Amino acid sequence: MNPEVLLSRIRVVLCRTSHPGNIGAAARAMKTMGLSSLYLVQPKQFPDPEADTRATGAVDLLQRAIITSSLSEALVGASYVVALSARQRDIGPALGAPRETVARLLSEAERGDVALVFGNETVGLSNEEILHCQAAVTIPTNPDFSSLNLGSAVQVLCYDCRMAAFAERPPHVDAGVTPFSSPAATHDEIEGLYAHLESVMTATGFFNPKQPGRLLPKLRRLFGRARLERDEINILRGVLAATEVRTGHGRKG
Amino acid sequence: MNPEVLLSRIRVVLCRTSHPGNIGAAARAMKTMGLSSLYLVQPKQFPDPEADTRATGAVDLLQRAIITSSLSEALVGASYVVALSARQRDIGPALGAPRETVARLLSEAERGDVALVFGNETVGLSNEEILHCQAAVTIPTNPDFSSLNLGSAVQVLCYDCRMAAFAERPPHVDAGVTPFSSPAATHDEIEGLYAHLESVMTATGFFNPKQPGRLLPKLRRLFGRARLERDEINILRGVLAATEVRTGHGRKG
Repeated sequence: MNPEVLLSRIRVVLCRTSHPGNIGAAARAMKTMGLSSLYLVQPKQFPDPEADTRATGAVDLLQRAIITSSLSEALVGASYVVALSARQRDIGPALGAPRETVARLLSEAERGDVALVFGNETVGLSNEEILHCQAAVTIPTNPDFSSLNLGSAVQVLCYDCRMAAFAERPPHVDAGVTPFSSPAATHDEIEGLYAHLESVMTATGFFNPKQPGRLLPKLRRLFGRARLERDEINILRGVLAATEVRTGHGRKG
Repeated sequence: MNPEVLLSRIRVVLCRTSHPGNIGAAARAMKTMGLSSLYLVQPKQFPDPEADTRATGAVDLLQRAIITSSLSEALVGASYVVALSARQRDIGPALGAPRETVARLLSEAERGDVALVFGNETVGLSNEEILHCQAAVTIPTNPDFSSLNLGSAVQVLCYDCRMAAFAERPPHVDAGVTPFSSPAATHDEIEGLYAHLESVMTATGFFNPKQPGRLLPKLRRLFGRARLERDEINILRGVLAATEVRTGHGRKG
């Protein structure tokens, strides 16, 4: 597939960014590398003149940026989502190295929209946000000074995306995934499954929302690793719907 | 060799930087990747509070930065010098891709100090400055928007340096150079050769300083590609000194 098209399918999602200047720097970084799709989840201050200044000639990306109130909203339609994270979380996808992770991201982009998710400058992504992602990536830094600027982190990963998009790739780089027989499920389809699952587990008494423990994160982690196809979502939801009928919680008999 | 030691041997040389904020951003970018040696050639405004602000925890690099009045001064003792350039110059080293060029830079750092040279934000490096460098590198960008921020360019190349330093490298990655039998010549030794050569060529009438044409740049390009060893410099200068004696321009008979 045309490298420019692949790059256009990569969303950059910035969550709860504090400094508008960093949003501008991210837009500039994206555009220099041929990315164009910017999502802002609850930006603290946006639009803002400081964002425009730092974006220089990439103000068009800011103008077209999509602002959402949750990460989930920003990921609707995306079928593969990578979180930037400085550390491995107890529950969450394994941290990958940039080039390998980006190679996989580009390979997934052949099938549809994908996303790179960046957290707040100070606190990063929440554990809950990380669990919306199928993979996590860390940028190796000096252990004595790992304070990578947000714009710089966006620059580095967008650069790796461009290098990967234009690199000669073997025809079937699938990073361990068997070729999909049905389209990859999108984020919203997967979220629909999780909601359905939670509802059924609650109805069946397996899951107690008042004492949730780590059950839901563990399920997210499992399905995140599995990379669900749309057909599989349909099958799983069919199973859940059937369970509802049997336990009397379904809509209809 | 220890990757940290290799990284410590890479100088980042910023030439005629206009905005002190970019110097700070460069320092921060360097430190996150484990580089520490910053040279500033005729910075427009430095030190400056904006540089400190953008450097955050990398102010120590700014404090230890070495300020020089020429690129040549900043390169004393460096044996391999790479220029960042957006375009191929008529005369000048061939533009390489970042990863290959950085791999070579790291390989050269096994032998001694090396440098990455960045030009002014607006005009880049002059042709004369490029000719002080043995290699040139370009960061592939969107042809419709190649306006990479200086701090971002430093970030990308320092990132590639860190990745290369910590990558498993085959024992003899020499990027086409045969192993050196004598230490690589340093920048000042090479400049000494050029000055000597120019003087002899002028004395012999081969070179007319009033109509210089492209002779000197072409010689720089040639020797830049050749990657001179110290012994070779000694030999060449011996040849020149002998010529001087013969033509009566030497110090003594």
